[in-house]
Amino acid sequence: MTIKHLDSGEILSQAVVHDNTIYVCGLTATNRELDVAGQTREVLAKIDDRLAKCGTGKTRLLNVTIYLTEITLKPAMNEVWKDWLGDLERPARACIGGVELEPGALVEIIVSAAR
Amino acid sequence: MTIKHLDSGEILSQAVVHDNTIYVCGLTATNRELDVAGQTREVLAKIDDRLAKCGTGKTRLLNVTIYLTEITLKPAMNEVWKDWLGDLERPARACIGGVELEPGALVEIIVSAAR
Amino acid sequence: MTIKHLDSGEILSQAVVHDNTIYVCGLTATNRELDVAGQTREVLAKIDDRLAKCGTGKTRLLNVTIYLTEITLKPAMNEVWKDWLGDLERPARACIGGVELEPGALVEIIVSAAR
Repeated sequence: MTIKHLDSGEILSQAVVHDNTIYVCGLTATNRELDVAGQTREVLAKIDDRLAKCGTGKTRLLNVTIYLTEITLKPAMNEVWKDWLGDLERPARACIGGVELEPGALVEIIVSAAR
Repeated sequence: MTIKHLDSGEILSQAVVHDNTIYVCGLTATNRELDVAGQTREVLAKIDDRLAKCGTGKTRLLNVTIYLTEITLKPAMNEVWKDWLGDLERPARACIGGVELEPGALVEIIVSAAR
Repeated sequence: MTIKHLDSGEILSQAVVHDNTIYVCGLTATNRELDVAGQTREVLAKIDDRLAKCGTGKTRLLNVTIYLTEITLKPAMNEVWKDWLGDLERPARACIGGVELEPGALVEIIVSAAR
């Protein structure tokens, strides 16, 4: 069964499609001056983009892992998360804090989705 | 292909079923007074519950990620893990320490399983 | 649908095969005296081994999560990663730092692959 790669670069592909599942790479905000709400909005916009390029969207999310540099950032991230999903049914999700991300990044999100 | 959501709430679904795979959300103990062994027992009971509600069980586990606030908690967690699995074949697993979870939570477990 | 387990041990299986997907357990280097480049080489060799035993290989990687004890180790790990993949298309990947692994381990890698 064929594996399709979206924007395979030096280190990683932005997404990989196999069978009925899409795996998106871990995404962080480009503008690291933003607070966690702003960074989360930027990350979720990137996820929308990657999913669209794979022919799917946030209505088809399966599983999400969110990493935060501090667990105390979770409530502010959650507000943006809820706005983004609106009335849609939610994916499975885990949120882990206290990790080191790229300098200035406060949040990194990994999603998988169905085609 | 249809995606089924178990208890889709404000933030997440307790589990998502797609194709032949079930993704359970990250689970922590409700009673945060317990030590890591007690918390692990409670988390594994929740996993039994979520899997049962999706029509599967621990005999069908595929992949597990366990987060601990301190890696030194791993041996005590592992004892409960082994008891829980008994003679069953084991899933793939990773265990990561030194993260921040919700206040008082010592262990969080994420599983996927086959239908 | 059958689940196949590779080397199911006391705690985990080295890999689990289900449907068209292979889940490899979190792997660390055996020689913990090595620096992060050496440990990464050892881990990637173990991944080659586990994938081969499941009838696949690094050309069929889907999704990878890399944990580092310090995010500053990422560039040295990435050099080994790029050498290992050569001209192959890249999987989706996330890299998380600042976690606690087994004593002396600097890097742990989790991969999934297609059959």
